[in-house]
Amino acid sequence: MREINASIPFDKALWRQDIAASQAHVAMLGAQGIVSADDAQTISRGLDTVAAEYEANGVPENWDLEDIHMTTESRLAELIGPAAGRLHTARSRNDQVATDFRLWVRDAMDQVDAGLEALQRALITRAGEHADSIMPGFTHLQTAQPVTLGHHLMAYYEMIRRDRSRFADARVRMNECPLGAAALAGTGFPIDRAATAQALGFAKPTDNSLDSVSDRDFALDYLQAAAQCSLHLSRLAEEFIIWASQPFGFVALPDALSTGSSIMPQKKNPDAAELVRGHSGRIVGCLTALMITMKGLPLAYSKDMQDDKPPVFEAANLLGLSIAAMTGMVADTVFRTGRMRNAAELGYATATDLADWLVRQADIPFREAHHITGAAVKLAESEGKALDALTLDQLRAIDSRIDARVYSALSVEASVAARASHGGTAPEQVRLRVAAARNALGMES
Amino acid sequence: MREINASIPFDKALWRQDIAASQAHVAMLGAQGIVSADDAQTISRGLDTVAAEYEANGVPENWDLEDIHMTTESRLAELIGPAAGRLHTARSRNDQVATDFRLWVRDAMDQVDAGLEALQRALITRAGEHADSIMPGFTHLQTAQPVTLGHHLMAYYEMIRRDRSRFADARVRMNECPLGAAALAGTGFPIDRAATAQALGFAKPTDNSLDSVSDRDFALDYLQAAAQCSLHLSRLAEEFIIWASQPFGFVALPDALSTGSSIMPQKKNPDAAELVRGHSGRIVGCLTALMITMKGLPLAYSKDMQDDKPPVFEAANLLGLSIAAMTGMVADTVFRTGRMRNAAELGYATATDLADWLVRQADIPFREAHHITGAAVKLAESEGKALDALTLDQLRAIDSRIDARVYSALSVEASVAARASHGGTAPEQVRLRVAAARNALGMES
Amino acid sequence: MREINASIPFDKALWRQDIAASQAHVAMLGAQGIVSADDAQTISRGLDTVAAEYEANGVPENWDLEDIHMTTESRLAELIGPAAGRLHTARSRNDQVATDFRLWVRDAMDQVDAGLEALQRALITRAGEHADSIMPGFTHLQTAQPVTLGHHLMAYYEMIRRDRSRFADARVRMNECPLGAAALAGTGFPIDRAATAQALGFAKPTDNSLDSVSDRDFALDYLQAAAQCSLHLSRLAEEFIIWASQPFGFVALPDALSTGSSIMPQKKNPDAAELVRGHSGRIVGCLTALMITMKGLPLAYSKDMQDDKPPVFEAANLLGLSIAAMTGMVADTVFRTGRMRNAAELGYATATDLADWLVRQADIPFREAHHITGAAVKLAESEGKALDALTLDQLRAIDSRIDARVYSALSVEASVAARASHGGTAPEQVRLRVAAARNALGMES
Amino acid sequence: MREINASIPFDKALWRQDIAASQAHVAMLGAQGIVSADDAQTISRGLDTVAAEYEANGVPENWDLEDIHMTTESRLAELIGPAAGRLHTARSRNDQVATDFRLWVRDAMDQVDAGLEALQRALITRAGEHADSIMPGFTHLQTAQPVTLGHHLMAYYEMIRRDRSRFADARVRMNECPLGAAALAGTGFPIDRAATAQALGFAKPTDNSLDSVSDRDFALDYLQAAAQCSLHLSRLAEEFIIWASQPFGFVALPDALSTGSSIMPQKKNPDAAELVRGHSGRIVGCLTALMITMKGLPLAYSKDMQDDKPPVFEAANLLGLSIAAMTGMVADTVFRTGRMRNAAELGYATATDLADWLVRQADIPFREAHHITGAAVKLAESEGKALDALTLDQLRAIDSRIDARVYSALSVEASVAARASHGGTAPEQVRLRVAAARNALGMES
Repeated sequence: MREINASIPFDKALWRQDIAASQAHVAMLGAQGIVSADDAQTISRGLDTVAAEYEANGVPENWDLEDIHMTTESRLAELIGPAAGRLHTARSRNDQVATDFRLWVRDAMDQVDAGLEALQRALITRAGEHADSIMPGFTHLQTAQPVTLGHHLMAYYEMIRRDRSRFADARVRMNECPLGAAALAGTGFPIDRAATAQALGFAKPTDNSLDSVSDRDFALDYLQAAAQCSLHLSRLAEEFIIWASQPFGFVALPDALSTGSSIMPQKKNPDAAELVRGHSGRIVGCLTALMITMKGLPLAYSKDMQDDKPPVFEAANLLGLSIAAMTGMVADTVFRTGRMRNAAELGYATATDLADWLVRQADIPFREAHHITGAAVKLAESEGKALDALTLDQLRAIDSRIDARVYSALSVEASVAARASHGGTAPEQVRLRVAAARNALGMES
Repeated sequence: MREINASIPFDKALWRQDIAASQAHVAMLGAQGIVSADDAQTISRGLDTVAAEYEANGVPENWDLEDIHMTTESRLAELIGPAAGRLHTARSRNDQVATDFRLWVRDAMDQVDAGLEALQRALITRAGEHADSIMPGFTHLQTAQPVTLGHHLMAYYEMIRRDRSRFADARVRMNECPLGAAALAGTGFPIDRAATAQALGFAKPTDNSLDSVSDRDFALDYLQAAAQCSLHLSRLAEEFIIWASQPFGFVALPDALSTGSSIMPQKKNPDAAELVRGHSGRIVGCLTALMITMKGLPLAYSKDMQDDKPPVFEAANLLGLSIAAMTGMVADTVFRTGRMRNAAELGYATATDLADWLVRQADIPFREAHHITGAAVKLAESEGKALDALTLDQLRAIDSRIDARVYSALSVEASVAARASHGGTAPEQVRLRVAAARNALGMES
Repeated sequence: MREINASIPFDKALWRQDIAASQAHVAMLGAQGIVSADDAQTISRGLDTVAAEYEANGVPENWDLEDIHMTTESRLAELIGPAAGRLHTARSRNDQVATDFRLWVRDAMDQVDAGLEALQRALITRAGEHADSIMPGFTHLQTAQPVTLGHHLMAYYEMIRRDRSRFADARVRMNECPLGAAALAGTGFPIDRAATAQALGFAKPTDNSLDSVSDRDFALDYLQAAAQCSLHLSRLAEEFIIWASQPFGFVALPDALSTGSSIMPQKKNPDAAELVRGHSGRIVGCLTALMITMKGLPLAYSKDMQDDKPPVFEAANLLGLSIAAMTGMVADTVFRTGRMRNAAELGYATATDLADWLVRQADIPFREAHHITGAAVKLAESEGKALDALTLDQLRAIDSRIDARVYSALSVEASVAARASHGGTAPEQVRLRVAAARNALGMES
Repeated sequence: MREINASIPFDKALWRQDIAASQAHVAMLGAQGIVSADDAQTISRGLDTVAAEYEANGVPENWDLEDIHMTTESRLAELIGPAAGRLHTARSRNDQVATDFRLWVRDAMDQVDAGLEALQRALITRAGEHADSIMPGFTHLQTAQPVTLGHHLMAYYEMIRRDRSRFADARVRMNECPLGAAALAGTGFPIDRAATAQALGFAKPTDNSLDSVSDRDFALDYLQAAAQCSLHLSRLAEEFIIWASQPFGFVALPDALSTGSSIMPQKKNPDAAELVRGHSGRIVGCLTALMITMKGLPLAYSKDMQDDKPPVFEAANLLGLSIAAMTGMVADTVFRTGRMRNAAELGYATATDLADWLVRQADIPFREAHHITGAAVKLAESEGKALDALTLDQLRAIDSRIDARVYSALSVEASVAARASHGGTAPEQVRLRVAAARNALGMES
């Protein structure tokens, strides 16, 4: 029982939040005259001492003191004697743990946001460098049309933008203070919940005491945002892994984030990307765990809810590592733009541009244009050449209506330049988006 | 292959959105002179005809026409001939399906919001009726302190308030129009993406074409909000199920939402509540499914993403049923307040109030107060009485420091009245919260 | 990178398996003459020393030595010098970790099986004690028909029987040795895979080297069996929680597995049961995590697979605690059989028996019999009595065709005794099943 | 309520099983004299008629008749009059649905097994054709060592072998008949459960009536086996998708399972493989759904359990499609063995073989051998050649201890031939495994 019941091995991570919430509580108790000014001061100083001890030596893990709250109370009582007992006036373990954990999750949200901003900056910077670098744009992992690398990287900027907005929304939604809900029903003491809420940086106190001690939406919101973010990172990781394979050869990964081989200098295992991809599974697993745990729980607090913390702590750790790894990967990867451009050409990514040109410039019906294009690609493929390396004679042998202007459509440069619609891959569009993103993040231009 | 590939059996649900997006697109093509005004008008009228046919007869399910888009295009071509082909200028299946599905999900969000508002109104109304009705407040499903039924119902008002805010946040985040992203890279045609975005009620066009066709965050956001909402409903359902059991007997469920028995008039199976609880599992399963499907997909569109719709459609259906069922349950359940109050008394829910009184009024140390309280509860239990049904003599026999004022603490009414802190269970607090909620929803007071 | 890459913080749990596999490997290398007999002996003794050190002082956690394998190799090299390098002949990290982890999981399966057998014994023992104790049988948590507590407990015996068979099947399926698959392709050294397989207790070596290093089915099988088992335990936990509530009052939980209250002697928080129920969510989360991680991984080893261990370790720990908690709960709970019987009577659990009697003995049509029964239940309910406490006059006033024989159907004892079909709830049937179960487990009768 | 309650839209899929179970039940009732021989015959013939009607016209979907059981009963009553009512003697909806669904799942298991055997045969056949075809063996999607394509395909044979064993184990575990458990407690009628079990192909009747109506392990076992199988298929799908990309170009996919393009003859979208990969997400979602639904359900039947069928039906459909698609893919894909071999050579997959040769033949220390190998790979890479295309002079210029025998290690053929340990990639080993597999499946050799 001690083993299944003790939460101190993991909830000691809450110690800073626990001290902060207790300080806010005792200050309010003193201000309201619920405890004497002297007691309030004694308790507050005692909490400072406990915090200093934890900071210096870590939190002791004594299973008889079950959780971080009892651990702190017990140490406080050793330090200041019976006055320690007054700290628990007008609160209960239920609102205390709800407050501590909420504070912890709020901090975690702020940390993720900072990490994601750094990742965005790395994406923007590399996108700016590669606004003109051409690579194959894939659908179904098949070469479809040429795009620019800058455009590709900016797609991830957009995903991370949504991730940040998701965390921001969750932060606003959860920023209400449960302290004062007591065990489940509120309290008869004349407490000032607005004061403790404000002291702890909350927008307001919560409005229903039963909900306050039963609610773990804030943890689920965090996990859901974390899960979506990790899925985005898993997609980028998948791309780096594929790009780093020998047949692609689009990237040389940073040494710090891969495992090299002295025998095979061209081989580098994309370990960090693989772990990011793997971590997305575990983060989704953490979300699943807490959703299941909360299913069908009657009000108010049930002990099942003690299982809220390990998944959140684990996800926060894995997500932090994943963001840092991908930021390093984006910042320091060498993009082998020559190979990328070559793959776009030998993948015949401009075939649709040729077909479009035949329809629009040579007024050839759609179906026939496709047929001609197919013949041209087949010829180029058999010669191992890019489409625009075919001679005009070769092209005219396929269809005599083709003239020299066709080369304006055949090159990958022409193809990307043409797609200048809002949000399109044209370098000018990419530069516009990069500038807007730099502006949004306050990066100097 | 036809069978694994065909999406028409489920994506025909998108027909309204598909027609609407095509109308916006062709109007823009006409306005920009990309197709002639005549062609634009012909196409638009043709789409009206197709829509009228679908409305009247349903969408035909021909697997050779794979999906709703080809089904509509094919019928349009039958109706208006070759001009139909011009509708697809400057768009592709990839941005089309992204637009249609986004519109569908946005509609689904609006429907959920309306359903949740109705549920909130039912909760508020019943909470107002029962601001003074006393029931046991449970922690660990053990009787802890008395609360009011109105307070308990308002806890769910708060959960649903967060659910609505979650859907609202998701709606803002997703309200950008992908139409015009084309296959993945944008288009060379001089399209006006702001115009189509506005025509379809979007705040703006999306900013990156690769992201536009690869992104399914809006579907995941919907599923995450749906999953959390369903977990809240599962908690309320669990309570109704427990409350409806013979040993509790707190409620008589509405006939329309339960299965009665002619043999056992007192027995009513809480089928609807059980299905709501069961549905939460399936809705979470839908979320899990789409998260896994999106994991590790390289950009841009991959066919895996065709598996985005069935989980969303299923979750939307199950959630809609669940909200409606719980709204009916809240509105029409008969709360057996006598049994609730009785359970609070015989559960000795005011034991902590007695202990508090002993500490505060009789100045008895905490530990001793607990001991005295234990003795009083034991006596009451052995006599099968409520605490405040013990005589003063009986109480004084346990501890002579007790006096007549103690009865102010022993009754369940006194207990709930005392907990008047912000968000507490006191009837006056509940009435305040009900009034604020009525105001927030624009209900007349 | 060091932080995201290092697995030593968790994979040190594999040390015993790592040493055992290395001992088997080096013995085989010596026997085959791949390393000299001297070297083999030196290495073996060195491994013994390392093992003794780990046993005494724990495994050192040096992140530069990344994982348990390098930690052990490095220490071995310090102890015995260059000969240490020969241990890695004809194997690779990939087959080594696959072997170690498989051994660990096999041990975990054996531990679970022992735990589940203990739980079965507790269930059987208590079922034997309560073969005649009557309680309400619920459907939809509504009182349906009387059953015996022994019968109810034996339902869990059946679930656990299936759980054990699931683990046993998984054990057979996974009991093949991957050692010798090397990096992914096998080896050119003349190794004897049958010998190492046998030394480590495997039935045979695996048959495909690529599969050997890519396969984590054994971990998934473990997690799936663990998840199902935890769901069974969650159902039993839910019942204990409901049964322990004041309105039910069916059980007094063991002090060691609940939290009492000095104020409210009748209140005991079913903490252990709640944690078991909560843990089921986390165990399912672990399964989900690994399934997602394995999805879509190309052959052979990918670093994502390093994320296989934390979910398995976590699930094993939570399941072990859960089984032990439920075993204690089953063994030591006091069943308040008086309250159970009373609930069966006041829940009118024999109403269907009365209706059946009217049909069979009084030859009254089904529909009319139901009507009469409803009237009898209503009368009994209004008087707060059990059905068989109604007088014959009272019953005959409802329908004159009723005679004194009816009492043989009205009592809960008669009801359970009648249901003597194979697997039914009749005490004689329960005793048969208990005897068979005792026999199956080799418990003395 | 009708809408949330009605299961007929999905449970009509059970009609064959429902008829079969009713036939077995009525035959037993007749044989035991519980109903008259005449009635038994009338009912049986009536059921034949209903079945014939369903076969011809489908099952009518009338929501007032809620489920398949009432639909059939109601039709039977129309056909044969009041005798129809006797069919329900000594059974209840609870054991009836448990029996029907179990029969359905058992059939589904048998179908999957047949599908998986076909997939194994395809794998074996293609592996036999390609026992000597060389491709790069990947770890971390980096070229590691050469393997044979036959060996790679046989890795999937092993996975499918485990999948079949998982379904087979589940089939044995679930093959007990719940019919006769009645509502939850068994019955007082003198039924012969062994007879109905035997008639329906079960090994025996279940041993506990409460468990019989509460158990859905068989459905979870099915979903777990389906989920694991789908993960295996997702890995193979991922490989086909990568192999089909232009930079790899290892395969030309069958036209029937991909979408070609008239413009780009070399481009084929691997739609079927992508859908298989996507479906794995949905199948895992189905498993998650049912696990959550079952969590924490008290005994016996609860209505939540009606949500057991949709996930199972959906998973069975998706898995069936996935297996068929992958079987076609394996059978009909053109493997471009030239490009595979070329990738192995230009990926320097034999670098480790060279290093091994230097250690073993030239007695060069490990670390120095690695250094020499690195230099050789660098040179070959700079010349765009395979390692064994370097001249002896070139190699000796790097290290003079190299002699002509080195070429025996440098070629990819030599490399794979050497790895002849049990389960290794050497063609002779692959042929052995193929022969054993053909033998296991009874394929002629």
